[in-house]
Amino acid sequence: MTETVLSSPGKEVVIGFDRPFVVIGERINPTGRKKLAAEIAAGDFSTVESDAVAQVAAGAHVLDVNAGVPTADEARLMTDMVKIVQGLVDVPLCIDSSMVPALEAGLAAYDGKALVNSVTGEEESLESVLPLIKKHGAAVVAICNDKSGISEDPDVRFEVARKIRNRALDHDIPADDVVVDPLVMPVGAVGNAGRAVLSLVRRVREELELNTICGASNVSFGLPDRQGLNAAFLAMLIGAGMTSAIVNPLHVEVMTGITGAEVLSGLDHRCKRWMKRCRALQQNQAA
Amino acid sequence: MTETVLSSPGKEVVIGFDRPFVVIGERINPTGRKKLAAEIAAGDFSTVESDAVAQVAAGAHVLDVNAGVPTADEARLMTDMVKIVQGLVDVPLCIDSSMVPALEAGLAAYDGKALVNSVTGEEESLESVLPLIKKHGAAVVAICNDKSGISEDPDVRFEVARKIRNRALDHDIPADDVVVDPLVMPVGAVGNAGRAVLSLVRRVREELELNTICGASNVSFGLPDRQGLNAAFLAMLIGAGMTSAIVNPLHVEVMTGITGAEVLSGLDHRCKRWMKRCRALQQNQAA
Repeated sequence: MTETVLSSPGKEVVIGFDRPFVVIGERINPTGRKKLAAEIAAGDFSTVESDAVAQVAAGAHVLDVNAGVPTADEARLMTDMVKIVQGLVDVPLCIDSSMVPALEAGLAAYDGKALVNSVTGEEESLESVLPLIKKHGAAVVAICNDKSGISEDPDVRFEVARKIRNRALDHDIPADDVVVDPLVMPVGAVGNAGRAVLSLVRRVREELELNTICGASNVSFGLPDRQGLNAAFLAMLIGAGMTSAIVNPLHVEVMTGITGAEVLSGLDHRCKRWMKRCRALQQNQAA
Repeated sequence: MTETVLSSPGKEVVIGFDRPFVVIGERINPTGRKKLAAEIAAGDFSTVESDAVAQVAAGAHVLDVNAGVPTADEARLMTDMVKIVQGLVDVPLCIDSSMVPALEAGLAAYDGKALVNSVTGEEESLESVLPLIKKHGAAVVAICNDKSGISEDPDVRFEVARKIRNRALDHDIPADDVVVDPLVMPVGAVGNAGRAVLSLVRRVREELELNTICGASNVSFGLPDRQGLNAAFLAMLIGAGMTSAIVNPLHVEVMTGITGAEVLSGLDHRCKRWMKRCRALQQNQAA
């Protein structure tokens, strides 16, 4: 029974097989959000604050926090943002950066057991990130690329996942604290992108017995009606056994796809969450 | 390579692995539609006609035709309805009845290779329906129940599918002309209904190498936001390898789920159908 336990001061969230699907809010991330990047660079965290509250209200169980503003001191920003978000909402955070000093600063500032996004199969990443994970008792997202880049061959990506799992064990990190991201490519550019991820999710679950995560929205990059496509993809991913994803919980269609797929996977006992969600949507429409 | 070829006078539709998903319009069916039943009983086929045209316009590749009006002469009605629908739209039909004489009448009236809905694993059904299928060179929907009813055990249902496939072969019907319906129960009543069907679809495809079909809307019976749930279910079914379904093509969310899942399964080359659909929806909204 694979379980990745994350925590904030007052809440525990478990990513696990046969557990409710874990929704990680993607919004607190200046990548591709110029206005947010400028605000953060100027020390204005008002959008970060409103995004934190709105995403939790919309059903996010965990929030991703990324402070990657070009030319800014990312480690200092990450420290500030982790403290601000933890001061506002009591959910676990996913500390997200490609810069090790920013991950380190975020972990130092964080109160609880965080998810760290991410480590790759590259030697430098493995040997700089995994010691941090061990030191702070965190969990980590294992991204299926290595020095050769992102392979289009699912077998290659699967072996990267296995390698990261094994290296984590070498660092005395429990396998349950490794959550595999099979890497979602845009299906408009890579025709078999969806199929590759679906088969990887199944294999990682069945053969490595690890939890899985992905940035699902990437799949629809460049295509029209991205929400519709993302919703279908998430339903398929949950059908294939994926246990968490980084998504925009403010997208109603996407959350409907996730909640519906939980019902159909037998993860929503007596359809209680589905009915609660339908009632809430009706009340919103009436208001 | 499994292929079930259906035809109307001017069109061929192939249900097959790695083919576009086949949408079978469910509307021409008086079951649970009192007004339609009364119209048909009174010899008024205007709704049948408008439903035929609307469903094909909305993307149905095949139309289900069911003439089950209580107390009426179903065989005569089936004859009339098959002729009327074939006079209006050039798509293959699925001749749908639990009464063998109605299936016989429908097949006699039909021009092309029809899909017959359905045969079960019961001896009486097998030995009355399969000879008709052979005689008319039709394809048949094999429903996974037998004299013991609908088992909640997916293994039992799988064995019924295998039994029907083998009996069809005994009747000199090619296995490709057997399309398995794993039987969708309402998930509100049977908690593992979705999961059971998903696993059956995968097994029927991998182990029996047969096409699959289902009446997907059943899954949401009794629950709120049925379209949202049906859309998620269809995406999951396509992810599991289902190749056709009987659905309401007028439900926009459901068709979005299907078309999206095709993109993500690599069944929509260069996302052409997805983009065409998005353009059509935009034009409708603008109009």
